[in-house]
Amino acid sequence: MTSAPPRIDIDRLVRRLMELGEIGAIAGTTGCSRLALTDDDRAGRDLVRTWMDELGLDITTDGIGNVVATMSGFDPSITPVMTGSHIDTVATGGRYDGNLGVLAGLEVIETVLTSGIELDRPLAVGWFTDEEGARFPPDMLGSLVYVGGMPLEEALEITDADGLSVGDELDRIGYRGAGPTPGRVPHSYVELHIEQGPVLEDEDITIGVVEGVQGISWTELTLTGQSCHAGTTPMRLRHDPAFVAADITTFVRDLTTEFGGAQVATVGAVTLTPNLVNVVASTATMTVDLRNTDDAILQQVETRFRGHVARAAEREGVGVETRTLARFEPVDFDRRVIDLVEACAAERGLTSKRMPSGAGHDAQMFARVCPTAMIFTKSVNGISHNVTEFTAPDDLEAGANVLLDVMLRLTREDFA
Amino acid sequence: MTSAPPRIDIDRLVRRLMELGEIGAIAGTTGCSRLALTDDDRAGRDLVRTWMDELGLDITTDGIGNVVATMSGFDPSITPVMTGSHIDTVATGGRYDGNLGVLAGLEVIETVLTSGIELDRPLAVGWFTDEEGARFPPDMLGSLVYVGGMPLEEALEITDADGLSVGDELDRIGYRGAGPTPGRVPHSYVELHIEQGPVLEDEDITIGVVEGVQGISWTELTLTGQSCHAGTTPMRLRHDPAFVAADITTFVRDLTTEFGGAQVATVGAVTLTPNLVNVVASTATMTVDLRNTDDAILQQVETRFRGHVARAAEREGVGVETRTLARFEPVDFDRRVIDLVEACAAERGLTSKRMPSGAGHDAQMFARVCPTAMIFTKSVNGISHNVTEFTAPDDLEAGANVLLDVMLRLTREDFA
Repeated sequence: MTSAPPRIDIDRLVRRLMELGEIGAIAGTTGCSRLALTDDDRAGRDLVRTWMDELGLDITTDGIGNVVATMSGFDPSITPVMTGSHIDTVATGGRYDGNLGVLAGLEVIETVLTSGIELDRPLAVGWFTDEEGARFPPDMLGSLVYVGGMPLEEALEITDADGLSVGDELDRIGYRGAGPTPGRVPHSYVELHIEQGPVLEDEDITIGVVEGVQGISWTELTLTGQSCHAGTTPMRLRHDPAFVAADITTFVRDLTTEFGGAQVATVGAVTLTPNLVNVVASTATMTVDLRNTDDAILQQVETRFRGHVARAAEREGVGVETRTLARFEPVDFDRRVIDLVEACAAERGLTSKRMPSGAGHDAQMFARVCPTAMIFTKSVNGISHNVTEFTAPDDLEAGANVLLDVMLRLTREDFA
Repeated sequence: MTSAPPRIDIDRLVRRLMELGEIGAIAGTTGCSRLALTDDDRAGRDLVRTWMDELGLDITTDGIGNVVATMSGFDPSITPVMTGSHIDTVATGGRYDGNLGVLAGLEVIETVLTSGIELDRPLAVGWFTDEEGARFPPDMLGSLVYVGGMPLEEALEITDADGLSVGDELDRIGYRGAGPTPGRVPHSYVELHIEQGPVLEDEDITIGVVEGVQGISWTELTLTGQSCHAGTTPMRLRHDPAFVAADITTFVRDLTTEFGGAQVATVGAVTLTPNLVNVVASTATMTVDLRNTDDAILQQVETRFRGHVARAAEREGVGVETRTLARFEPVDFDRRVIDLVEACAAERGLTSKRMPSGAGHDAQMFARVCPTAMIFTKSVNGISHNVTEFTAPDDLEAGANVLLDVMLRLTREDFA
């Protein structure tokens, strides 16, 4: 390429992000709330589909409500280079998580269409139903069904807290389509997303070259002791589950120091009963979130954690019930696509850093079926899933231009 | 005394405990709920006053609703030996806490009256308003006002969570009396109470000889960190208040090991926000309850605790606000009355053990103005402030007989 590379139109991208964010906007904030398959989600879907229509794309809606728009006019045997993400949000979400990936994909396609670049294969952009899992578990439901990880029938029967099913809600909002599931396997998949963490900002780096997704191990512990009076019960006669919960919390922190590297551990939820100043708790429930990019290390950490839980509970004479809330192995993205992301960032003169994703994304589902990677852009203060979520236009523009470049380069790759 | 000593009538005492416990009874349990100055508290008061009336006692109701019944027919200059406790309960309380002290006192007086024993000074039994503090803070309010520890006017203006005042509620239930506050200083005071702890049962001892009340130090900590994603935020960038709360919890447990003896420490309440499995908490509030019978040691423990809080919060980059919820110095009971309790237990052939009270009691207020001690009887499983609170009739009988003996002996003591 000797001519100046094409650039996405950042004003158009930001305008669309704000327009979509007005649907389900949370008053007095820049946040928004579009839980999957609600009326607000429908309104958001309708708006984005209108934009897809205006570009003359071939739009397919499948049985789980995933919507994929593909450039028209290509031989049907040529698979597309796909991008995408989701437009559902958590109950008090922001305007960037997911939305950026979909609208930047649309922006890339519009840029290519208006610049007259000739492609060997089409580009496609999709959004995938219920990525957040905030209404219907599990998260990444739509992309899971797309890649054949869950039969459609099973997914349609999943219910929300009010007992409403995915299938009925899809019918209600008019997004139960005729497209097949599993969906057509794309040539390759690359997704732009906000980091949802503080690393890029902290190190003043523009582009995150995402090598994979951390493995996740979520455990809920229910510790059962004996409630008693905080003044009248000598320490030696106590069976205090709150103390055991604290002991476990400090232990898992110590594990992160011992194992170092990418190992993270979080105790985010603790509930004591009866939770009074002068009563030793009868029960404590707590969650432990362990993640690592290396599954072998994650397994070692889990073993150490379980051993300590058993010992700490026994020492205090406290019963323990353990429930696995989630366990996902780490996902490795495709080395060739990762290299492409890094190269494209460098060609734009942007700083970049190879990093794992700490959160789950639709891309990890596509990694099961085609060469895949992701591009991260900064999250101010690392904040996401929050109405204050923000990424500056300059960073959005950098990320979307890298997405553009990577997608163009991918059309010329032969991964066969 | 060469004749057989008098004995209380355990059947009558248990019958009255059960009859009083029917007022505010919690369906399906043996618990009861008579929060101070509610309609149920009024009904309980009315019932016990009826029993006092039947014995021909002189009944005085003072301005805070304390009711004291004194044997009649004595020279008004002779001060009574007083016993008493409270008949208000916590919201889900039992039938023994407080009630036992009042009804055992009544039983002692009835036993003396019917046995024809001649006394040098009258016996009196009282109940004191809002001992639990469960509706109007602080606890032991009625006895505090009785001994002059708080002006009546100030006490009457205290409001509950709904904004209703002590004075208005006293008027409403008809228990704002004309008796003076501070009240008449008794010759001496001795109170029978369930232990509310497990020590007597654990060591198979019948009578607790209570030497004093532990000093209490209650602190609420509000730890403010930074909420972030549990997957995307490296450990080095975290400011996790839940971790600091756990660190403080294990530290205060270590302090009890280091200081040993009577030192107890409890973290009974912890609340994380937002309390989600995959979000590092933004804030943690927690309470720390420290108690010791020796105020000098308690102060050392408090100093060590505060130092650790500051260091642990600083290390993690977490802000900390500290609020003292309560601070009471230990109370020492009168050595002569303590010795009497011990001697009377021995004379009845009962096992006894000198011990502190871990909980607050009306007796600690009387200790400010006259020779005072307490008698403890077992609490099954150490349980109190709970609908399953229970003490076996044999233990109630033993405790009430020791109360009888101690009160009779006190009428002959000259403490001047």
